[in-house]
Amino acid sequence: MTVSRTLAGGRNVRPDVQERVMEAVKELGYYRNENARSLRPGQPSGLVGVAITNLANPYYGNFALGVEEVAAEHGRRILLGNTGEDDARERQLVSDFIGRQVDGLILVPTSGDAEHLRPERLGDVPLVLASRRVPGLDVDTVLLDDVGGAYRGTLSLLDAGHTRIGFLGNRSSVFTGERRCRGYERAMLERGVPIDPRIVFRDQQDVAAATRAAKAMFDAADPPTAVFSANNRNTIGAIREIGRRIRDGEPLHPAVVSFDDFELSELMPVPVTVIDHDARLLGREAATLLFSRLDGTAEDGPRTVELPVSIEFP
Amino acid sequence: MTVSRTLAGGRNVRPDVQERVMEAVKELGYYRNENARSLRPGQPSGLVGVAITNLANPYYGNFALGVEEVAAEHGRRILLGNTGEDDARERQLVSDFIGRQVDGLILVPTSGDAEHLRPERLGDVPLVLASRRVPGLDVDTVLLDDVGGAYRGTLSLLDAGHTRIGFLGNRSSVFTGERRCRGYERAMLERGVPIDPRIVFRDQQDVAAATRAAKAMFDAADPPTAVFSANNRNTIGAIREIGRRIRDGEPLHPAVVSFDDFELSELMPVPVTVIDHDARLLGREAATLLFSRLDGTAEDGPRTVELPVSIEFP
Repeated sequence: MTVSRTLAGGRNVRPDVQERVMEAVKELGYYRNENARSLRPGQPSGLVGVAITNLANPYYGNFALGVEEVAAEHGRRILLGNTGEDDARERQLVSDFIGRQVDGLILVPTSGDAEHLRPERLGDVPLVLASRRVPGLDVDTVLLDDVGGAYRGTLSLLDAGHTRIGFLGNRSSVFTGERRCRGYERAMLERGVPIDPRIVFRDQQDVAAATRAAKAMFDAADPPTAVFSANNRNTIGAIREIGRRIRDGEPLHPAVVSFDDFELSELMPVPVTVIDHDARLLGREAATLLFSRLDGTAEDGPRTVELPVSIEFP
Repeated sequence: MTVSRTLAGGRNVRPDVQERVMEAVKELGYYRNENARSLRPGQPSGLVGVAITNLANPYYGNFALGVEEVAAEHGRRILLGNTGEDDARERQLVSDFIGRQVDGLILVPTSGDAEHLRPERLGDVPLVLASRRVPGLDVDTVLLDDVGGAYRGTLSLLDAGHTRIGFLGNRSSVFTGERRCRGYERAMLERGVPIDPRIVFRDQQDVAAATRAAKAMFDAADPPTAVFSANNRNTIGAIREIGRRIRDGEPLHPAVVSFDDFELSELMPVPVTVIDHDARLLGREAATLLFSRLDGTAEDGPRTVELPVSIEFP
């Protein structure tokens, strides 16, 4: 008990005893059994379950880093799982996290149904969604200004005189894919520029698929003079394909607008405008929402934070 | 008990009972208390503690993904922590992981002392090191062929006729930094080409520092015609600086050899040779070593796996 009290901060333990305890602990390697603590009624496990869709995307590495930083500031650790956009894996991960009595959940949700995320299914463990909403689930959520960013990015291409603007994005069932496409469409509509479905590609979840879509786009009869890419993976695929064609001598020089930053974007063979935002901040905000819910300082209803994006011209 | 048995696979439970249990579970949202299980003597917690040095580096996102995949195949979850190359944070993370009764630890170690990693301090929880060794700690380890890769990469520059070859790397106290520098030095020595300390920069831990080092390197009186970069972060910094100078009209066209791949390396303004390896595989191998230790199929002594690297010319 004296050891526990000392390690918990030393309340009601004489300083000289504390010192002797700390010396012994240092020598023997004593560790608190954090799991045993978590079984006492009302004691939190000190774990936050974090499930993201694609850890191979550097964006989500930074997101996880932001969550981990804030969790550490609150003395918590993160259990990390990767869903790979697979609903079944998400269900399994969430169920497992709940079984491990996590204090809270932070989720970049896949686009499947929300049944397993209902509060009663989570044993009322607080849930924060990041990047995407889940239809019919009204919980704390951190989003980006997807529509506004895509709208302004597309406008910048229209302002530069482009009228054939291709679109590369992920599945329309993915929340951000849908929102970013809406921003693109809004800008096109507003300027009365028709959208040609032959240069709109909306189903690419990785760089290989994006490269193939970009190839099809530039093989089209009337290829675009500009491309709006709705995320990092699509941008890399598009630029890989454009770069290959330029190296092969094709007279090609499309302008590219990329939602999501990527490293060395300033050195690309074509000018790239970046719709930039901070993945680490997104992670920090999600964790901040969660911890204010856990410590009871949050207001009652679900909150939505929409983080701004910035446009960086080449 | 019947519920537990059913959820654990249904042994000794009649099929019709299993079905009724599963229906009730679906309706009520029953979860096994994984922490309670972990307190029974001899029962593993089902958690693996993973501490890496820099989650913002896409290389480590892929590493964590590889560990997570193999852990999931073994029904385990990962507790993930970021040390930021800070010894104190590593000590705290490891202590916390042990307190949470992890079944095993996988660590990309910082370069500090190893006292907190001794078996007796870990309560004999198995530890696997990845990427780097810790002096004086003889445990299961997965490494890359750092020396061989750096040697062959540097040789390729010497073979191309370069004799002023700059070096960019991270702290010499970092194990991979030391090994990759040794490979560079070995190639230079073997060919009798002197190493000029004025174009050797060994202390860059992030892109900003690497950019500054590259600037100093090319501002030198007799700048190099080629650069060997010992990791991803240094390569990005070097190419950022080289690209900026080329855009500003400087007559500069150094060859670059990069230990670690990066996206769009084929589109850079200077030719980049990549010493490539698979971060995800490194993570998978580390987890495989750990689980063979946990299930008792590993041989007795500590094992070292050295993964090969491949050289990709531009």
